[in-house]
Amino acid sequence: MNIKKNIQVCFSTDQFEKYSDKKSTVVVVDLLRATSVISTAFKFGIKDIIPVRTLKETLKYKNYKNYILAAERNTLIVEGFKYGNSPYHYMNKKISGKTLVLTTTNGTQAIHIAKLHKVITASFINITAVTKYLIKDQNDIIILCSGWKGFFNLEDTIFAGALANEILKHNFFTANCDSLNAARNLYSIAKHDLFKYLNSSCYRKRNKSKQLIKDTKFCLNPTIKSDIIPIYKKGKLIKM
Amino acid sequence: MNIKKNIQVCFSTDQFEKYSDKKSTVVVVDLLRATSVISTAFKFGIKDIIPVRTLKETLKYKNYKNYILAAERNTLIVEGFKYGNSPYHYMNKKISGKTLVLTTTNGTQAIHIAKLHKVITASFINITAVTKYLIKDQNDIIILCSGWKGFFNLEDTIFAGALANEILKHNFFTANCDSLNAARNLYSIAKHDLFKYLNSSCYRKRNKSKQLIKDTKFCLNPTIKSDIIPIYKKGKLIKM
Repeated sequence: MNIKKNIQVCFSTDQFEKYSDKKSTVVVVDLLRATSVISTAFKFGIKDIIPVRTLKETLKYKNYKNYILAAERNTLIVEGFKYGNSPYHYMNKKISGKTLVLTTTNGTQAIHIAKLHKVITASFINITAVTKYLIKDQNDIIILCSGWKGFFNLEDTIFAGALANEILKHNFFTANCDSLNAARNLYSIAKHDLFKYLNSSCYRKRNKSKQLIKDTKFCLNPTIKSDIIPIYKKGKLIKM
Repeated sequence: MNIKKNIQVCFSTDQFEKYSDKKSTVVVVDLLRATSVISTAFKFGIKDIIPVRTLKETLKYKNYKNYILAAERNTLIVEGFKYGNSPYHYMNKKISGKTLVLTTTNGTQAIHIAKLHKVITASFINITAVTKYLIKDQNDIIILCSGWKGFFNLEDTIFAGALANEILKHNFFTANCDSLNAARNLYSIAKHDLFKYLNSSCYRKRNKSKQLIKDTKFCLNPTIKSDIIPIYKKGKLIKM
């Protein structure tokens, strides 16, 4: 195949409308932690995931059988919920075959912002599978960093750089996007020690709890890998 | 002085409203080329500069005595204008004592977007003077990259990184801003050869004319230096 496809990186949800063309495949990234949580939950057998924007909407599913409700705001699990945005919440067989209703500060918002496109989600857990898929997919690609409340963040950007590197090993892609160049440059600095690189990031300063450090280490260097590519269809993330 | 002042980098005009607090000093950067042009024009004796948004508004000053009208769109001088966005247009004594009415694709727009703040402009020509001023200034600082039509660009970002490095040598600044970290990282990669670093940038791909290459080399490594800090007051950039 010699068709040149285009690849871009969008640094934050607030910028997405400048990139949106309703045709590209959008790869949503919220590395710390929503898209890592999504990969983990699928790996441990969740049937599907409903990403929702608000707590109110999440609670609509309260009495549904075989539904798990999860909510995170500002790095913390929301009071009253048993499940939050830690991948460790989902590493158990109890979730198998169930539906997860998930709302987070950034990642689930990003999925909604991009939903007029073909939307998939990526993390270091499924990066190899996502790369393989994107190479075969006919569409142009937008890697959408969820960022932090519309702001640029380092963690999603370095992942975007890592993913772009993998994709660009294949010469039927073109790139003319300064934010993609920047993401690749930043990953080249960060890759030797991702956790250390993020020491001075806003994310690491925001919450220094042991649990979040454990989660962060897992999301940056996951001990599990997955071939599952979550794709958004009719209001749900399902396995492709 | 031990008051900790805050410093942030905003990557594009489209993001500025998220940073705007009506109190910070805003340093507008459009390295290629508007803020380099502004520094050059002041160095060669221009009295003041009226940054305007539209061509129509520029033409209002058509018959004003001792006014120079300059317009650039998409890297090119606008047809019918003698002056554009090349610093070389302003390296002559004819401009001395005159008023420059300037409209450009990004830089002059950025000045308008930020004008409820104290606004100064920076380039490699006046980076030392700007740094000294910001160290003494009591306000928090927002370095506003003009970007390209609301998008992130590499050239303004590496300059923001260079300026942030200079400012942060003084320990009465604090920084908790991922885009500032990224800008400093990118400058650390770029600084060894700024022109080469920008080889794959959108800016360099947009227009490969000899004149633009010459302009770019000048703006990145200017052969002139200036102590003049342009500040926006009552609709004009004047010498501080």
